[in-house]
Amino acid sequence: MEQMKPKGRILSGMRPTGKMHLGNYVGALENWVKLQGIYENFHLIADYHALTTNLDTSEILTNTIEMVSDWLAVGINPEISPIFRQSQIKQHAELHLLFSMLITTARLERNPTLKEQVRDLNMENITYGHLGYPVLQAADILLYKGNVVPVGEDQAPHVEITREIARKFNATYAEVFPIPETKLTTFARLPGLDGNKMSKSLGNTILISDDEITVRTKLRKAITDPQKIRRGDPGRPEICLVFTYQQKFNQAEVPEIESGCRSGALGCVECKQKCATTISQTIEPYRVRRQPYAEHPEKVLEILKEGEARARSVAEQTMQEVRQAMRLGEV
Amino acid sequence: MEQMKPKGRILSGMRPTGKMHLGNYVGALENWVKLQGIYENFHLIADYHALTTNLDTSEILTNTIEMVSDWLAVGINPEISPIFRQSQIKQHAELHLLFSMLITTARLERNPTLKEQVRDLNMENITYGHLGYPVLQAADILLYKGNVVPVGEDQAPHVEITREIARKFNATYAEVFPIPETKLTTFARLPGLDGNKMSKSLGNTILISDDEITVRTKLRKAITDPQKIRRGDPGRPEICLVFTYQQKFNQAEVPEIESGCRSGALGCVECKQKCATTISQTIEPYRVRRQPYAEHPEKVLEILKEGEARARSVAEQTMQEVRQAMRLGEV
Repeated sequence: MEQMKPKGRILSGMRPTGKMHLGNYVGALENWVKLQGIYENFHLIADYHALTTNLDTSEILTNTIEMVSDWLAVGINPEISPIFRQSQIKQHAELHLLFSMLITTARLERNPTLKEQVRDLNMENITYGHLGYPVLQAADILLYKGNVVPVGEDQAPHVEITREIARKFNATYAEVFPIPETKLTTFARLPGLDGNKMSKSLGNTILISDDEITVRTKLRKAITDPQKIRRGDPGRPEICLVFTYQQKFNQAEVPEIESGCRSGALGCVECKQKCATTISQTIEPYRVRRQPYAEHPEKVLEILKEGEARARSVAEQTMQEVRQAMRLGEV
Repeated sequence: MEQMKPKGRILSGMRPTGKMHLGNYVGALENWVKLQGIYENFHLIADYHALTTNLDTSEILTNTIEMVSDWLAVGINPEISPIFRQSQIKQHAELHLLFSMLITTARLERNPTLKEQVRDLNMENITYGHLGYPVLQAADILLYKGNVVPVGEDQAPHVEITREIARKFNATYAEVFPIPETKLTTFARLPGLDGNKMSKSLGNTILISDDEITVRTKLRKAITDPQKIRRGDPGRPEICLVFTYQQKFNQAEVPEIESGCRSGALGCVECKQKCATTISQTIEPYRVRRQPYAEHPEKVLEILKEGEARARSVAEQTMQEVRQAMRLGEV
């Protein structure tokens, strides 16, 4: 059978945060796997970006290996989609520096996502690199001539900056870059065990690599309808965290669970057990596929090095066009 | 005889502005040659920096070759002091990106030299790269572990930023960088033929590569004391541009010229001829030494490539220490 022509090239990445949780899975990885084969995917480990909010790099290598093990476990095929670290492809830094001349600080200061981050992180003084992270992001995307950027609404302003920089470069020097399309995407969000956003720093996660006992233990603490104290009390699934999980991982049983909860026939303990079972069944194959990487982290490094060699050669090709267009270096 | 141990390492550079004029010579090159052998000198062609104020790169290669031809002509010995282009050593961009995380935008906005430039260039919106040029300068210096920075008073704030970044890196990761010393230096300034600062863009220069006829022609138009209309009129050397040149290039005759001017016995035409002669005599050997490079620009490129190989190896050594200290990449 003839291989389908990819519909475009996507650069998607993540900061190296360590073991992936179900929020990462539902919000990103599941989608990455789905797009594999339809688009040409490049997967970036954004270790430079991580520095914009945290200078401590002592865990960066461990976190990278843990994260990539999970990517591989859920089905990212590195033969199809190269996986690589930003810091290992020097061309990111080079293109970032050149792009920094093509956009004003005023434009970057108007970036709404930055304003939000500054508020959330309560940082009085953002660093120069933090202000410029959309410039680095533009370099990340355009280095691989990414022409489709799937983003949530909140990330759309970044893509706009990427598009502006690409247009400015092309107009000033030569038509080197595609103007990437914004592909507005609804990213599912999975709440954490305490009802807040699922996040490592909040300690409210279920990990992709958790075994069944861990999942059961964690789910026992999950918040349900506070008015449903014991079995028999009628519950409100629409405000229950565990019901959200059931909807995602146990669709077949949802009607039965919903009516059981509302009538009171289904107690929270039993409901959580069902939920733990179905989540465990979903992630069990990932945990199994992850095992060899956990035992041999050098295999992950090997995969990274291969991905980096492939990414570097694409990146260097782009940079040669850039340098020629700008007449930097021998012409 | 034993070779003297260098007193330190200096990184000095210039944007690729093309043929050098006497202002460049008196303000920088003469000093570079003097320091050669006393300090270890690295000479940077700041082609990335040039982009902060001018995106047009069409002349950058020609200007680089012209400029370096003059550096070589006045006596920079590339066997002793490597000459290299910033854009050809990717480590500058890499270190710049890492350093961008170590300084706040507020700190960069307080840079008085930037404020002045913004006023002079009448730029409403400075680019992100322009705001960050002291960060790039810090990378330029520290990549080669420069520990002495000779600067005029107006440039001292930049060195302060370099020192801050070096301290911050060392405190956060490991003692990789020296804290460079500011060596306050009085840089002689030579006015242009119209009395303003000598500058290519003002068209008021005498070039190091000008032949005698050109020097004579240019000097004829030089501004002298406006009250001295013809020979016999008493002149005021202290406000005469040509007298400034005499003081620099014709020291032996200065007393005689000064009294002749004041008494009126020496006319401006004759004074200018004397001045043209002495300037021509000074620069004639440079013009001769420059000739082979003008005829064979590929020799200059060859010298650059050698310098770049040497600089790159020092830069890569530093970056290996940086990456290890930050645990970026395999440890």
